[in-house]
Amino acid sequence: MQINYYADLLKIRNTKPLVHHITNYVVMNVSANITLSLGASPVMAHAKPEVEDMVSIARVFYINIGTLSDHWIDAMLLAGKTANKKNVPVLLDPVGAGATKYRTETAKRILKEVKVDVLKGNAGEMQSLAGAKVHVKGVDSVTSAGIETAETLAKKYGLVAVVTGKQDHVSDGKRSAVVNNGTDMFSRITGAGCMLGSVIASFMAVNNDYFISSIEGLASFNIAGEKAAAKTGLPGSFMTALIDEISLLNEDTYKLAHIIIH
Amino acid sequence: MQINYYADLLKIRNTKPLVHHITNYVVMNVSANITLSLGASPVMAHAKPEVEDMVSIARVFYINIGTLSDHWIDAMLLAGKTANKKNVPVLLDPVGAGATKYRTETAKRILKEVKVDVLKGNAGEMQSLAGAKVHVKGVDSVTSAGIETAETLAKKYGLVAVVTGKQDHVSDGKRSAVVNNGTDMFSRITGAGCMLGSVIASFMAVNNDYFISSIEGLASFNIAGEKAAAKTGLPGSFMTALIDEISLLNEDTYKLAHIIIH
Amino acid sequence: MQINYYADLLKIRNTKPLVHHITNYVVMNVSANITLSLGASPVMAHAKPEVEDMVSIARVFYINIGTLSDHWIDAMLLAGKTANKKNVPVLLDPVGAGATKYRTETAKRILKEVKVDVLKGNAGEMQSLAGAKVHVKGVDSVTSAGIETAETLAKKYGLVAVVTGKQDHVSDGKRSAVVNNGTDMFSRITGAGCMLGSVIASFMAVNNDYFISSIEGLASFNIAGEKAAAKTGLPGSFMTALIDEISLLNEDTYKLAHIIIH
Repeated sequence: MQINYYADLLKIRNTKPLVHHITNYVVMNVSANITLSLGASPVMAHAKPEVEDMVSIARVFYINIGTLSDHWIDAMLLAGKTANKKNVPVLLDPVGAGATKYRTETAKRILKEVKVDVLKGNAGEMQSLAGAKVHVKGVDSVTSAGIETAETLAKKYGLVAVVTGKQDHVSDGKRSAVVNNGTDMFSRITGAGCMLGSVIASFMAVNNDYFISSIEGLASFNIAGEKAAAKTGLPGSFMTALIDEISLLNEDTYKLAHIIIH
Repeated sequence: MQINYYADLLKIRNTKPLVHHITNYVVMNVSANITLSLGASPVMAHAKPEVEDMVSIARVFYINIGTLSDHWIDAMLLAGKTANKKNVPVLLDPVGAGATKYRTETAKRILKEVKVDVLKGNAGEMQSLAGAKVHVKGVDSVTSAGIETAETLAKKYGLVAVVTGKQDHVSDGKRSAVVNNGTDMFSRITGAGCMLGSVIASFMAVNNDYFISSIEGLASFNIAGEKAAAKTGLPGSFMTALIDEISLLNEDTYKLAHIIIH
Repeated sequence: MQINYYADLLKIRNTKPLVHHITNYVVMNVSANITLSLGASPVMAHAKPEVEDMVSIARVFYINIGTLSDHWIDAMLLAGKTANKKNVPVLLDPVGAGATKYRTETAKRILKEVKVDVLKGNAGEMQSLAGAKVHVKGVDSVTSAGIETAETLAKKYGLVAVVTGKQDHVSDGKRSAVVNNGTDMFSRITGAGCMLGSVIASFMAVNNDYFISSIEGLASFNIAGEKAAAKTGLPGSFMTALIDEISLLNEDTYKLAHIIIH
């Protein structure tokens, strides 16, 4: 399978698609900056009286439950249902699912009431949503657990599932991919997963094969992370370098992509 | 007309005026840092039970509607009316007016219920508030549209209107100014307009000719942006450099001001 | 008294304790990053339906009232009471106490309804909570005022009181300490005090002598600040350097600690 990373990156830069975020307070600034650095246009809007209007002019809608409250959940659902009506694709990041019942149930409720196109989370979050069918078999089988979790969720909800970790796993229920790019530095800053969501969402805006756009987002973010980590091993400097490197992605960059597609 | 940029900057640095912000989640951190870097004292407070107290001890009140919800609007109105009673000047940034009805109507409601001293927004936002009297005449006449929009709003609401863009236009209904400083890098980070609001507000705290303090804020922010852009063309590094350069503004800096006043 | 700074830092790095924050919007991102940079695991959660679950799996709970509203106060109280039941230590930063009645009363209400283990604030905030017993005797006696305020609050509420300033004072009612590390650069960025709270909280998670863990947090944060200030005198760059330097703390670093314990 040929993936036209750079062509889709150029589409983002040329069309500057509006990426409507309802995301958490912690990352709003850096998520907006990562989205801009990539070439898309971020907007944050969470009030019920305006989310229908906002999502209707957006090219993609990104829900992130990293800091929740009841009013925000109402707005996520309303905006998500509107996105579905308007054929605006939806990405959900179920941050903290599994950690509290409130987050797990909120993620499940969104998955039930909104047609989600891409569901992206770390292994723990995704396993809490996949349910009993997935058994983590210990540290040595993280890889197989990632694939299994992604496939289970993809089939269960009819979406593209992205399970992040040392390797990232993507499945749409038929096709699956392993992304071997990335850096340990992501674990030393806050919001790496949330920012990845913004990058994948931006690719979803220009490529409606969401299995492919998820891979494109992962490759872009992870390679930029590798390049930033090559500049610095310090977390404050890494955050700045990551935003810089996202803006520097180019045709050559994607030669570094280590992706295996099944 | 002589503008004493540096004298007013020194007043900010020496008196550290309290700048009460009710602003959006995305930029709270960077707006606070820009305000501190300039020499003023930022405070963020949005709860109805305290905004009257807070705005009463502030030297200027800055409302930014970048992330709205009903409770916050109530607090903006209450704080704004209190500011009016206490003779604390008010700056309004109608972020996203024109994009959703909620934002447009909120901006108009604030303008109706609160005496706003400076209204600052980009061309689209400001035109949505100016109404039918302003016709954008195409890409080539952005300049004349900016002037016309600023003058229309200045007269309509009896305030100083600042229309930002490649050039920035300022009008108080009688006098008008064009600010030719700035950098394209502002469009590559989130919150440049919001941070500009903090800088203008800080000058409003020390110079109550708000036509002049708006120009001072624009010159200060835009020149710092030029200097930051001369250091780096990368957005993450630019954000850091911008905060640094605001702190470095000095008497010589203002020789770079390219302002035309009519 | 021997303080094993480095041993406790290693405990943080090795056990990555979960630090539950209910903190203000302005600093959420940098507080999370400082906590990660130190080696602990930050989480932000403020909704009543989940704070009991979240604080129950945390190793320490940090309340910061920097941006308040009624719903958040309810969550702070609920989480605080739950923390008390689960023996999770609590740190309170009464940001802005004294500036508005709402903040002063909220801080006092939390102190009344929740058993707080460490109360940390600047001189003005802490004096507003200490009440009439503390008299600031003028600029020249800031030091004695800091000690007196810390001791008064320690005894009044049965906790460890940390009064920050040019020197920082710590008291548990019996023992007291003066921390002479730090840098003026802390006053040129937003949220230095809030980030310090995250660092002290992280040490509280690994050392339940909170007088000692407060000193460890102060020494760690202030020394990292000194090292960052030695790199740069510019506020944007300083913020990045501060996060970097927190990650670089090591055994030698603590030889720079200038602490006097009585």
